[in-house]
Amino acid sequence: MVATSPSTALLTDHYELTMLAAALADGTGDRTCVFETFARRLPDGRRYGVVGGTRRFIDAVADFRFGDDELRHLRATKVVDEATLGWLADYRFAGDVDGYPEGELYFPGSPILTVTGTFADAVVLETLALSIFNHDSAIVSAGARMASAANGRPIIEMGSRRTHEHAAVASARAAFLAGFATTSNLEAGRTFAIPTTGTCAHAFTLLHDTEKAAFEAQVAALGPETTLLVDTYDITQGIATAIEVAGTGLGAIRIDSGDVGVLARQAREQLDELGATQTRIVVSGDLDEYAIAALRAEPVDAYGVGTSLVTGSGAPTAGMVYKLVEVAGRPVAKRSSSKESRGGRKLALRRHKPTGTALEEVVYLAEGEQPEAGEHDRPLQIPLMRAGQPVAALPTLEDGRQRVRQGLVSLPWEGLKLSAGEPAIPTVYLN
Amino acid sequence: MVATSPSTALLTDHYELTMLAAALADGTGDRTCVFETFARRLPDGRRYGVVGGTRRFIDAVADFRFGDDELRHLRATKVVDEATLGWLADYRFAGDVDGYPEGELYFPGSPILTVTGTFADAVVLETLALSIFNHDSAIVSAGARMASAANGRPIIEMGSRRTHEHAAVASARAAFLAGFATTSNLEAGRTFAIPTTGTCAHAFTLLHDTEKAAFEAQVAALGPETTLLVDTYDITQGIATAIEVAGTGLGAIRIDSGDVGVLARQAREQLDELGATQTRIVVSGDLDEYAIAALRAEPVDAYGVGTSLVTGSGAPTAGMVYKLVEVAGRPVAKRSSSKESRGGRKLALRRHKPTGTALEEVVYLAEGEQPEAGEHDRPLQIPLMRAGQPVAALPTLEDGRQRVRQGLVSLPWEGLKLSAGEPAIPTVYLN
Repeated sequence: MVATSPSTALLTDHYELTMLAAALADGTGDRTCVFETFARRLPDGRRYGVVGGTRRFIDAVADFRFGDDELRHLRATKVVDEATLGWLADYRFAGDVDGYPEGELYFPGSPILTVTGTFADAVVLETLALSIFNHDSAIVSAGARMASAANGRPIIEMGSRRTHEHAAVASARAAFLAGFATTSNLEAGRTFAIPTTGTCAHAFTLLHDTEKAAFEAQVAALGPETTLLVDTYDITQGIATAIEVAGTGLGAIRIDSGDVGVLARQAREQLDELGATQTRIVVSGDLDEYAIAALRAEPVDAYGVGTSLVTGSGAPTAGMVYKLVEVAGRPVAKRSSSKESRGGRKLALRRHKPTGTALEEVVYLAEGEQPEAGEHDRPLQIPLMRAGQPVAALPTLEDGRQRVRQGLVSLPWEGLKLSAGEPAIPTVYLN
Repeated sequence: MVATSPSTALLTDHYELTMLAAALADGTGDRTCVFETFARRLPDGRRYGVVGGTRRFIDAVADFRFGDDELRHLRATKVVDEATLGWLADYRFAGDVDGYPEGELYFPGSPILTVTGTFADAVVLETLALSIFNHDSAIVSAGARMASAANGRPIIEMGSRRTHEHAAVASARAAFLAGFATTSNLEAGRTFAIPTTGTCAHAFTLLHDTEKAAFEAQVAALGPETTLLVDTYDITQGIATAIEVAGTGLGAIRIDSGDVGVLARQAREQLDELGATQTRIVVSGDLDEYAIAALRAEPVDAYGVGTSLVTGSGAPTAGMVYKLVEVAGRPVAKRSSSKESRGGRKLALRRHKPTGTALEEVVYLAEGEQPEAGEHDRPLQIPLMRAGQPVAALPTLEDGRQRVRQGLVSLPWEGLKLSAGEPAIPTVYLN
């Protein structure tokens, strides 16, 4: 179940509805249109983006309904006229949606979402589509860099407290899509069936008269396989107490502050000397992809990541746009000054070497010269909705996780570098 | 009405509930505790922060209830034991909350929220409190810089598409709190009674066979006092067509791309020559507080701001923490390595010169030496909840807007500079 209102219809910019009213009034609202969502560029220095939000968008379209409450508000505030209110009361998206499957890599110009329908049907979905894709893609793109830097070590998502309470739920989902192992967010656990984890914070230790009493209480409640947070007072003493209380079968210790690389090395030595050779070391505390990469040589078993994940590690929004590219079969595009677009409905193909390494993103007009697709090339869009209904067998969250892994493997090696650079593969426009 | 689930209880980190279970089991959950929310520092170079989220937090506490659905999920996933599930089923926050009123300025260490209650009662609110305060305070703090830079000119919030769809609603509210005039977000209009505005996008012009046809349709539907977007093709031609269609009584034109300062000057001249001397000029397109300040000398009547507002203009989270500072009357604090805190419940007083200019933030222990308060000094915390109930006459959103204005006026002049610098006033710890 989703912890949001049944209607998503007012999660929308005022101007979508005034445009609608004007287009219904002069008849242009019935024209068949194609809207395309893409990023003009990647965030500064990023080498790839990862699509997130596709499934949430499709679910949100199903809930895009103007019920009595929504119509009452629009009438009271005179946003639109009565004729438009009548149209909205019956609104059900009836068009088609195609796009990149969730977890697919994207590059500048990649047509990650294509909405086809009447202008009226399709324009009202703009704000909702962009909110979801810009948020989720920003988070999964940052998360994929972290998962890649962690190089197989598990990452726990724990950023809920650093972002809006509902963005936190979507962020946990995006992190899982990116390859994180678990999340701390219980609503994400409920809504998206993601595994949740968590044990105790510094407050729990401070609550008790001694650290030992806190550890005893925790082990009594959660068992010796729990993770004990050892840096409330003195870490060396904390580790000694942890093993004294839980025994050498203690699941893990967590270090949340200080120079965690140095501390992890010392902790590993101490744990081994105490005989707790299987006790894992979890580190957290303002980690981002660079810190994770720097810890690669240290005896760290898992990372806890918060702030940097939910804020997109410097790129909190993906900067995608939702542009009208075709009206009644005619390509259209804004032409003045900056922010130009390419008209016409587009498709995309990713070319690969025989080894599977990606070579280029070929973007081409659906109505024009078609690229020759070799056996290692792959069309990137799939059908997502037909006549307003989701297609059968939409990719699952687990499918998306696999797709992220495969996508990262397919990148040229320099595409995985964390340093600032060009997109890992060029976007080539065929026409 | 609020467009979220009736229960906010699972918008919570897993470990809040495992800590709870362990504390209920050993009896420490009943200890009276004080948790404090504060920022250790302001975002890099920021000179002040503005508190946002207080009212949303209080409302969210009322909805923090574990119903059948929540309990079923926690049972199925074995997050806590049956005894704890029973306790959660009856959970109603029964403690006290004090804090800075919404819209108040804050500085490093300002105790912006103080939650007093049993450990069990208060610990479970941590994640929710931080999500709300970290998000809303980040947005209102960025928004206040923009409102200050706009120097009285109205700003329209239009960032919904660049952030999570529900964060967008809270961002619109935070922007209004900061002093923005209106928002594009319809749900914010409904939920928080904020005025919404909007007219048409480039898509509407592209939909039509000619720009003129689009303007005619818009004026027919929305009246000549509307705002026509003139930069789809050629701006000079667009302005000529706009006045031709709407007459010299046209409400406004909007320019969304290019060098908007230069374009605004040219547009003003052209409008004046055409006799449209009252037609306003709205500019938008990747504006932030620096761009707004740079446009101060240009003939701009209103700004549209999106991305930079909803992403906190480089600081998307306020970095506040929720720390246990007192247990059964005894001050407590983490002591190892970094991230140290000061134990004990704190209060705060802001000292001012006789002219009203702020001098310093005095933070002191509630149980300790009390500062002498002069006639120009002001205690900063107010009661927010008592015995689990909101106090009567909580400050309104409009009160918060006034408080932001007054706060900005009270800052030393260098505190309003947009450049990076020290906090505008120092935080002084009395004990």
